[in-house]
Amino acid sequence: MSEVLTLGMDLGGTQARTALVRGGEIVRRLAEPTDTEGGPDAILGQFRRMAAELRAGTERAAIVGAGICTPGPLDTETGTTLHIPTLPGWEDFPVRERMAEALSLPVVVENDGTAATFGEWRYGAGQGKRHVLYVTVSTGIGGGAVVDGVLLHGHRGMATHMGHFRMAPDGPVCACGATACFEALAAGTAFAKRARAAATAPGGHLGAVAAARRVETRDVVEGAQAGDPACLALIAEEAALLGQGFTGLMHLFSPELLIMGGGVSNAFDLLEDGIRAVVRRDAMPPFREVPIVRARLGDNAGLIGAATLALEKGDG
Amino acid sequence: MSEVLTLGMDLGGTQARTALVRGGEIVRRLAEPTDTEGGPDAILGQFRRMAAELRAGTERAAIVGAGICTPGPLDTETGTTLHIPTLPGWEDFPVRERMAEALSLPVVVENDGTAATFGEWRYGAGQGKRHVLYVTVSTGIGGGAVVDGVLLHGHRGMATHMGHFRMAPDGPVCACGATACFEALAAGTAFAKRARAAATAPGGHLGAVAAARRVETRDVVEGAQAGDPACLALIAEEAALLGQGFTGLMHLFSPELLIMGGGVSNAFDLLEDGIRAVVRRDAMPPFREVPIVRARLGDNAGLIGAATLALEKGDG
Repeated sequence: MSEVLTLGMDLGGTQARTALVRGGEIVRRLAEPTDTEGGPDAILGQFRRMAAELRAGTERAAIVGAGICTPGPLDTETGTTLHIPTLPGWEDFPVRERMAEALSLPVVVENDGTAATFGEWRYGAGQGKRHVLYVTVSTGIGGGAVVDGVLLHGHRGMATHMGHFRMAPDGPVCACGATACFEALAAGTAFAKRARAAATAPGGHLGAVAAARRVETRDVVEGAQAGDPACLALIAEEAALLGQGFTGLMHLFSPELLIMGGGVSNAFDLLEDGIRAVVRRDAMPPFREVPIVRARLGDNAGLIGAATLALEKGDG
Repeated sequence: MSEVLTLGMDLGGTQARTALVRGGEIVRRLAEPTDTEGGPDAILGQFRRMAAELRAGTERAAIVGAGICTPGPLDTETGTTLHIPTLPGWEDFPVRERMAEALSLPVVVENDGTAATFGEWRYGAGQGKRHVLYVTVSTGIGGGAVVDGVLLHGHRGMATHMGHFRMAPDGPVCACGATACFEALAAGTAFAKRARAAATAPGGHLGAVAAARRVETRDVVEGAQAGDPACLALIAEEAALLGQGFTGLMHLFSPELLIMGGGVSNAFDLLEDGIRAVVRRDAMPPFREVPIVRARLGDNAGLIGAATLALEKGDG
């Protein structure tokens, strides 16, 4: 088993990544900026080239399959992307079939959040558990769930769109088109927007940054670490929103632990207490102490998960 | 198989019900008002008496097991109720063990929403599907999910508490203790409260009812059927809240169909268009036309589900 290699591919809105994976370890990895404007054909070309480069130094027969993960919704039963808000031209695109042709390998297609959940479950923070919730908080909010020892898929493989339940009657419009989803309120994009609004007030850490360049969420983290009151307030607000969303998700999936991934989890140490305080306040008693931990595989979770699914899911 | 009988028991905040079930059909059924103040011992006595009466006319060996469902959260792995907001004295009560002693039968314990989901899946509106979401809207909001052909349980059997995710930053306090949960906003209790507030305005159907007695949700249904504008507005508001909640749940579980049960589903014909309009507006494209149907087993879903689980889950 440990000799077997698979290819993992992660199609993101900004980066297209490909890796050679063995036993949950990345042997070699390549990444390029996604050719968003080129559409599916150009992007398939990117993956084909990266895969060829990775396979060049490897005995061809050693690679037994490939797994690709993409943003949803996609129909993983037919291997077709349905609608990717961040990538134009992928409506009803038969990605499994086309990728299998391009690579001459069996290909498994999975939602990126679901693939990352599988990676974290098998080789990351969720190892050995029967019930795992994975929530990735970056540009958007995604994730997946392992319940009763099984990775959840749902009809057409479209379950666990973790960011798209409404948390307010009104509010910012979400990437999905609806209003005030968990994602629209609590994802990195919303967090950064609040930071930029706070930076218009005179003085403080963010004001100083804003005088020189655009404020990013990492500036909030730095300011909070230095004790800046406005940055600490922004962290507290983000933690409260995450705590509210996580509480609802825990009531729905009852995990043994919740794993937080994505760019915003870089601030996990700062956010943790605030998240836990809201969970303790709002969750029903048996859910209040469910562990909430940071993801371990970082942005490799999807690659490792997709590559591992290629082994375990056969031809998809 | 069709000769085998099991007992189904449903412990509710207002009624304790027991039925003899064969092949998804209720052979005979008894119900009593729940002796809430008497606590677990008194209520166990109620079920023991009802079970004895049902067994009196039956060959003893023909009954192979019993299933009991209760409100959650309860730990179905250990068969222990953890905390039932509507029933005092049930904290950490070993209901499976005590009921097995009382009946001299193997007993399976299940959350009431999960048991009803199983009933509707096997013998009701969800027959033959691999992915079913069941949401019961009555005093509270509960339910369950079948995903990938399996009834979801989660850690300690506590998944699918469908009513407890936050839908607003502020609002009514929920039975669970948190604020502005789906249940607190959209359950029958909240619907009735809005109806009573509307009845304080002079004139109209509800004003006439309120002059004589307390307004109930069925008055809103009657008024809406007769075209009363205030009643139609209340129905539209309830439908919008349900549509928002259902949209989030569909994104999380990706069902082939969503089954609505509970007392409020008596108004399903009036609510349906409003629910669908919100789902079409807010759901991501592939989720917009997921069928939403009314439950078929009514308030027998939990009894039938629990009795059927007693057959299929062995000794729990």
